[in-house]
Amino acid sequence: MIPGCELCSSPGGAVLWQNDICRVVRVDEPDYPGYCRVILKRHAREMADLAPAERDSLMAVVFAVEAAVRDTLGAEKMNLASLGNMTPHLHWHVVARFRDDRHFPTPIWGAPQRDTPVPAERTARAAGLAAAIASRLAS
Amino acid sequence: MIPGCELCSSPGGAVLWQNDICRVVRVDEPDYPGYCRVILKRHAREMADLAPAERDSLMAVVFAVEAAVRDTLGAEKMNLASLGNMTPHLHWHVVARFRDDRHFPTPIWGAPQRDTPVPAERTARAAGLAAAIASRLAS
Repeated sequence: MIPGCELCSSPGGAVLWQNDICRVVRVDEPDYPGYCRVILKRHAREMADLAPAERDSLMAVVFAVEAAVRDTLGAEKMNLASLGNMTPHLHWHVVARFRDDRHFPTPIWGAPQRDTPVPAERTARAAGLAAAIASRLAS
Repeated sequence: MIPGCELCSSPGGAVLWQNDICRVVRVDEPDYPGYCRVILKRHAREMADLAPAERDSLMAVVFAVEAAVRDTLGAEKMNLASLGNMTPHLHWHVVARFRDDRHFPTPIWGAPQRDTPVPAERTARAAGLAAAIASRLAS
């Protein structure tokens, strides 16, 4: 627990799933339905700071969430990233990308490419994500 | 081998290290010395498409490169990302970030924050990266 660290002191979003080492939260970003973050519970800065077993456990969740998001939303491409320049507490972004999304094909942190509304059906599908993640991680 | 896939038909950069499943290449980006990509040799689109053993082997290389880059350059923060919206052939970006770099703290794909030259000493240190990666991956 690091004083002033946002991800030590708050969940960082609505929690969809958790275990002893990490939590999966929904990111409130209307342009990107199904956008999740997988957040390490303890404070660590880099993947290189984790022991191999902890690293593998965290990545197993990241890849399960990737698969659940893809299955649930039917993405054109999945984007995964661990950046943390502003909040250096390990967390993974898991984002479903579509040809018609706001930034495609640039990364979501780049310049917007268009301003078309998100299909309502995509947002509706994202509501099934918590169940899809739980199902993936139960097996 | 997919016709028209840039990473099926070319190395994608100067190869620093390789094994049966992936290669590590240097990215020619003067703003970011030590920027590497870890590229799966066979064509696959998503991490979710890999068998667990192949996925683990690829990530072991990604994390070894992360550690080697951090040790060699002394980064403020390491950034890891698998995006592939333009080139949907699995590859990981491994980027050392510094408080004085062109985009910090935004992702390197975001809007530039400043236009200061890269310290020559940082670029010089990156020359030792191939040896650092080989050393990490030999153990």
